[in-house]
Amino acid sequence: MNKLKLGVIGTGRIGKVHIATLVQNVPQAEVVAVADVNLAGAIEVANSFGISTVFSNYKDVINHPEVEAVVICSPTDTHAQYIVEAAQAGKHIFCEKPVDLSLPVIQGALDAVAKAGVKLMVGFNRRFDPNFAKIKQLVVDGKIGDPHILKITSRDPAPPPAEYSAVSGGMFMDMTIHDFDMARYIVGSEVTEVYVKSAVLVDEAIGKAGDVDTAIITLTFANGAIGVIDNSRKAVYGYDQRVEIFGSKGMACADNNYPDNHRYFAGDGVHGSLPLNFFMDRYLEAYANEMKIFCHAVVNNLPLQVSGDDGLKSVVIALAAKKSVLEQRPVKTSEIR
Amino acid sequence: MNKLKLGVIGTGRIGKVHIATLVQNVPQAEVVAVADVNLAGAIEVANSFGISTVFSNYKDVINHPEVEAVVICSPTDTHAQYIVEAAQAGKHIFCEKPVDLSLPVIQGALDAVAKAGVKLMVGFNRRFDPNFAKIKQLVVDGKIGDPHILKITSRDPAPPPAEYSAVSGGMFMDMTIHDFDMARYIVGSEVTEVYVKSAVLVDEAIGKAGDVDTAIITLTFANGAIGVIDNSRKAVYGYDQRVEIFGSKGMACADNNYPDNHRYFAGDGVHGSLPLNFFMDRYLEAYANEMKIFCHAVVNNLPLQVSGDDGLKSVVIALAAKKSVLEQRPVKTSEIR
Amino acid sequence: MNKLKLGVIGTGRIGKVHIATLVQNVPQAEVVAVADVNLAGAIEVANSFGISTVFSNYKDVINHPEVEAVVICSPTDTHAQYIVEAAQAGKHIFCEKPVDLSLPVIQGALDAVAKAGVKLMVGFNRRFDPNFAKIKQLVVDGKIGDPHILKITSRDPAPPPAEYSAVSGGMFMDMTIHDFDMARYIVGSEVTEVYVKSAVLVDEAIGKAGDVDTAIITLTFANGAIGVIDNSRKAVYGYDQRVEIFGSKGMACADNNYPDNHRYFAGDGVHGSLPLNFFMDRYLEAYANEMKIFCHAVVNNLPLQVSGDDGLKSVVIALAAKKSVLEQRPVKTSEIR
Amino acid sequence: MNKLKLGVIGTGRIGKVHIATLVQNVPQAEVVAVADVNLAGAIEVANSFGISTVFSNYKDVINHPEVEAVVICSPTDTHAQYIVEAAQAGKHIFCEKPVDLSLPVIQGALDAVAKAGVKLMVGFNRRFDPNFAKIKQLVVDGKIGDPHILKITSRDPAPPPAEYSAVSGGMFMDMTIHDFDMARYIVGSEVTEVYVKSAVLVDEAIGKAGDVDTAIITLTFANGAIGVIDNSRKAVYGYDQRVEIFGSKGMACADNNYPDNHRYFAGDGVHGSLPLNFFMDRYLEAYANEMKIFCHAVVNNLPLQVSGDDGLKSVVIALAAKKSVLEQRPVKTSEIR
Repeated sequence: MNKLKLGVIGTGRIGKVHIATLVQNVPQAEVVAVADVNLAGAIEVANSFGISTVFSNYKDVINHPEVEAVVICSPTDTHAQYIVEAAQAGKHIFCEKPVDLSLPVIQGALDAVAKAGVKLMVGFNRRFDPNFAKIKQLVVDGKIGDPHILKITSRDPAPPPAEYSAVSGGMFMDMTIHDFDMARYIVGSEVTEVYVKSAVLVDEAIGKAGDVDTAIITLTFANGAIGVIDNSRKAVYGYDQRVEIFGSKGMACADNNYPDNHRYFAGDGVHGSLPLNFFMDRYLEAYANEMKIFCHAVVNNLPLQVSGDDGLKSVVIALAAKKSVLEQRPVKTSEIR
Repeated sequence: MNKLKLGVIGTGRIGKVHIATLVQNVPQAEVVAVADVNLAGAIEVANSFGISTVFSNYKDVINHPEVEAVVICSPTDTHAQYIVEAAQAGKHIFCEKPVDLSLPVIQGALDAVAKAGVKLMVGFNRRFDPNFAKIKQLVVDGKIGDPHILKITSRDPAPPPAEYSAVSGGMFMDMTIHDFDMARYIVGSEVTEVYVKSAVLVDEAIGKAGDVDTAIITLTFANGAIGVIDNSRKAVYGYDQRVEIFGSKGMACADNNYPDNHRYFAGDGVHGSLPLNFFMDRYLEAYANEMKIFCHAVVNNLPLQVSGDDGLKSVVIALAAKKSVLEQRPVKTSEIR
Repeated sequence: MNKLKLGVIGTGRIGKVHIATLVQNVPQAEVVAVADVNLAGAIEVANSFGISTVFSNYKDVINHPEVEAVVICSPTDTHAQYIVEAAQAGKHIFCEKPVDLSLPVIQGALDAVAKAGVKLMVGFNRRFDPNFAKIKQLVVDGKIGDPHILKITSRDPAPPPAEYSAVSGGMFMDMTIHDFDMARYIVGSEVTEVYVKSAVLVDEAIGKAGDVDTAIITLTFANGAIGVIDNSRKAVYGYDQRVEIFGSKGMACADNNYPDNHRYFAGDGVHGSLPLNFFMDRYLEAYANEMKIFCHAVVNNLPLQVSGDDGLKSVVIALAAKKSVLEQRPVKTSEIR
Repeated sequence: MNKLKLGVIGTGRIGKVHIATLVQNVPQAEVVAVADVNLAGAIEVANSFGISTVFSNYKDVINHPEVEAVVICSPTDTHAQYIVEAAQAGKHIFCEKPVDLSLPVIQGALDAVAKAGVKLMVGFNRRFDPNFAKIKQLVVDGKIGDPHILKITSRDPAPPPAEYSAVSGGMFMDMTIHDFDMARYIVGSEVTEVYVKSAVLVDEAIGKAGDVDTAIITLTFANGAIGVIDNSRKAVYGYDQRVEIFGSKGMACADNNYPDNHRYFAGDGVHGSLPLNFFMDRYLEAYANEMKIFCHAVVNNLPLQVSGDDGLKSVVIALAAKKSVLEQRPVKTSEIR
C-alpha cells in the first residue's frame, strides 16, 4: 500500500487524538515525526504510539525529509505561520480550526498554499459525524427540497476559564465557528447576514472578559434560506449538539448521541442516560473519519472535503457575529471583508 | 350543581368545538343560546347539540336574560365590539384570540371589561395542552432554574389563502400570536425586544399580499432570557408544534403528538406515523381544558388563567414583529405602545 | 338521523364509561333506560347524563319497549343469562367480556343469539385502540409478510384483591383474556396450543387463593406462527400494554401511551412521564370507538367486528392456560372443547 | 507498563477482530504470534498488524516461549483440545464460545484449567456491550428489585447456510447460547427449566438439516424469576438485540443501536435508520471491552468476569432446549448433567 508519511505539530489533547487515529485506524498513514514545545509531553505521546522521532521545534517536523504532510494541532495563533512554512516546504497540510482570527492573516496563509500547490484541509470534524453527515446526505439527495429553515443547537457542558476568551477570540470564534461551518455545509449556501442576540447568563467573569456565554444567532443564506443557532457555554446535562433542516419537501433532524439506549421505568418516571458528555466522546468517530479522509485524499490526489476557503468563511461569519453584538443590528458578511 | 349558562356567538369551526365541549364535557355548563349571521348554519349546530334558542343577531345572545357568560367565536374584527357590549350587559366573556389588531381598540375593550367588573378570558388554548402545561410546570417548579433560552417551533401544514392575510393581520397576528403568548407563558417574563428575519418561501402570492410565510423571530425577555420562534406556513409532514426551555438547572422539551406510537421496521428503514395533522386534532384536549377552566373559574369566582392583558401583550409583540420586518432591525416593544 | 335506542344494564365503572360515550359522542345513539341492583347509584348516573328512566331490575331494561339494543355491564356471572333473555326479547346485544367462565354456558348464550337472529358484540375494546389497530392494519396490508412471532406485554399497575380471583376466574380469565383476543386478532389465526410458566411473585395471597400473578404464556397458531404473552399483576411504573408482530417482511411494534411527550434533561439523567396509568386512561379512545362502531353496525345492519365466537374462543384459550398451569405441560386447545 | 504477551490461534473473522483490538486498543497487550491452518491468510493478517511471527500449527503458538496467554478463535470442535494443551503449557486462555458441544468434553477442559491453575475466560462478549452492561448494573444496584420477568429478543439478519447447523450444533448452540448466558447474567440466577416452542419458518432447508430457525424459549430461574427468549434466524430489518428486565421495583429495557440518530419527516411518514446490521457492528465496542478486561485481569491477577463454568452452564441450557424441542415438554437442566 502507498503510505502517507505525516508529521504532527502539537501533541496536546487534539494532537493525541489525531495521532491515535493515524497510528491505529489509518493503514495508509505513517506518523514519522512529532513536535511540541513541551518536549517531555511529546516524548511520552510518541513512545506510547511507537513513534521514534520527536522534536521540540515544529520546523524540524516541517523540514523532515520524509514528512509528506503536516498535521497542525498547535495553538491557534501559530496556525497561519505554520501553514505558510509547510506550504513553502511543499508539504500538504491538515490544520485545526480556526486558521486564524484575522482575515488578512488567513488570506495570506491561503495564498501561500495556493502558490505552493499543496493541499490544505481545515479540521471541521463535525462534517464527518454520522448524524450530521446523514442530514447533509438527505439535503443533497433532494429529500428536503429547497431548504427554508436551518436550526442548530450547540451547547457545551461547561465554560472554559474566562481568560480563555481573550486568547480564543471569544465564543463565536472558538465554539460557534463549528456551527457556522455546519450551517454553510448543511444548507449548501453562503451566509450573507448575521444577527446576534447574546447574553451573559452563565458566568459574569465571561462578560467582564468582554465575551458572551449565551446567544441566539440568526443567519441569512444566499439561496434565500434562513437559519438560527442557539449557543450556551453551560448545559448541566452535558454536550448538546443537534441540527434540523426544514424545507419544501420535508424535515430532517439529528439528535444527540448517548452512551447507551436503555430506559428505566420506575415508580417516579421513565429515566435514561445523558448525552455523551463532550466533544472527545461525541465526535470520536468524526475525528477518525476526517483523518482517514484527509489521508485518502492526499494519497489519491483527490479534492479535500473542507478547504482553506471553508476555514476563511467561517471566520468571516464569526467576525460578523461579533460586530452584530457590538452594534446590535444585523450585519452583512460583505461588511466584513 | 351550580350551572353556568352560556351563549355562544359564532357557530363556525371553533364555535362548534367550544359548543361540543360545553355540551358534552362540562357538566357545570349549559348552552342556552347561540347566534350566527349564517342562521341556517347556526340552526344546524344548535340542533345537533340540543340547543333550543338560536339567533342571527349576536345582540340577542348578549342580551338574553338567562345568559351569564358569552363565548365570542365570531371574526376577529367583531371581537372588541362584542366584548364591550357584553361587558356593558354585565356578562362574563370568553373571547377567541386575537382581541383585535389595533392596540387602542383592545385597550378600549379591556377598559370596558374593567369598568363592568366582569371576567374576560382570551382563548390562548395552547396553555392548556398537556405537553406545554407540563413544560410550564417544570419551569414553575424550578426544575429549569433561571431560564436562558426558549425555543418554539410552530409550523402549519398548509398556508391559508393569500387574501386571508389582509383580514387576519398577517402571519404574526393570526399564527405566531399563539407562539408569542406561549413564549411569555413559559418564560414567565415580558418580551422587551423583537427581531424578525422573514422570507416568502412557500407561496409568492403571500408575499404579494404583503405578508411573509417563513420567519425566525428572536425575542428578548425582561428577566434576561432570550428566545427564538421559527415559523413556516407549510410543513409537508403536518402540524409541527414543539417547545424547549433551557436554563441553569436543566432543559425540558415537548415533542409533537402522534395518532399512535407504532414503529414499523422494514428492509428499507424504520417508519412511524406523522404528527397529528392540525390544530383541531392536536389541541382538542387543550380546547376542552380551557373551556372547563373558564366555566370553573366563573362559577367559583376564581381568577382566570389568561387575562385580557395577555391578549393585549401578544398583539404588542406581533406589532413589534411587523415593524421589525419593515425596518429590518430589532424593535423594542416599548416602541409600540 | 336514524337513532339507536339503547338500554344499559349495570352502572358501575365500565357502565358509566359506555353511557358517557353513548350520550356525548355517539350522535346515532340514545340511552333510553338504565338499570342496576344498586338503584341509588343508577339514579345518580342517570341524572348526570340526562337519562330519565332508571330501574333496579335488569329485566325492565330488556323488556322496555323502546330499547332496541342492550349494553350488558353487569358482573360476569350474569352475562350469559342476560344475553339469552335479551336475545329472546329480540334485542341486539353488546356484552362486556368474558361472556362466561363456562364453555357450555357461553355456547348456550350464543345459540340463543343465533336462534333469535340478533346481533351480539363482545367488548374486546383493545381492538379499537389506535396503536393496536395500526399494528393490525400493517398485518392486513401485508407489510409484515407471514407472521412468525407475536409478542404481547400486558401488565397491570396493581393487583385486584386476592378474593377477586375466585369470582373472576383468575388472571387468565379476567386479565389475560384481553391478550388472548389480541393475539388471535393480530395474527389472524386461531390458537392451537398453550403453554404457561407462571409464578406468584407479587402477592402470596393471590397464590393462596389458587391464582397466579406472573406468567409467560407461549402460544401456537394454526398458521404456524408462535407467540408469547408476558403478564404481571403489578408494574410499579403503571399500565404496560405493548404488542409486537414479527414476520417475513418486517416487524411492527406499538409502545404505551403517555400523558405527554415531554423530556426533561437534568444533571442526573433524562426523564419523562410514566405511561397512562390504567385502562380507563389508556383505552378511553378505544372504549369510545367500540361503542360508536357497535351503534353504527346495528343501525346500518353491518357485521360486527367482534363476534360471540370471538368471546368463546378467548375463553377456550384461558381454560387451556389454566390447564397448562395445573399439568405443567403444553395443552392443545382441542383438549378443551 | 507490564505488557501481556499473547498468541492468537485462528485468524478468521473473529480472530481478526481480537487482534485489531489487542494491537490498537490495549496498550497492555502485545501480540507476539498468530497461527492458522490457512497460513496465507494468517500471514496477511499478521502483516497488516505488524505481527512478525506466524505459524500454521496452533501448537507453535501455545508452546511459543514468549506467549503468556492464548486467544482461541479456531472452530468450535478444536476449542476444548486447545484449552487443555494451553493449560498444560501453563498459558492463560481466552476462548471463543461455545467451549464445546459435549458436556464431558467441556468438563475435561475445565478440569485441565483448574489443575494447571491458569485463567480461562469464555467469549461472551455481549456482557460488555454498554446497553446490556447498563441493564445489569441497574439489577445489581437494586433498581429493579426482585427480578420477575426477563425478556430477550435476539434475531439475526440472515440465516447461515443450512449445513452449518450440523457443525455448529444448531441454533441453540451457535446463536441462542449468547442469550442463555445473557439470561443468567442479567437475572443473576441459574436456569432450572427450559421449554421451547420452535418452528421452521425462514428456510425449509434448515428444517431438513434437523434444526429450527424460529423459537420462543421459556426459562425458569432458581430465584423464582421466569424469562423468555425469542429467536429468529432472519429479521429483514437487520440485527435485533434487545433485553428487558421487570421486577418488583421497576423495569429496564435496552433498545438496539443505530448508526445515527436522525429522523426524516416527509409527507408519507417519519423515517429513521435501521439498527446496526450485524454483530461485528453492534458488538464492536463489546469485543474491544472484553479483550481489554481479559488482559487487565490477567496482568493484574484479578478474577475473570466470564468463567469456564459460565461456558459450561450455557451449553447445559442449550442441550435442555434441544431436548425440549424433541420431547415437546419443559425440561429441567438437572436432567442434562
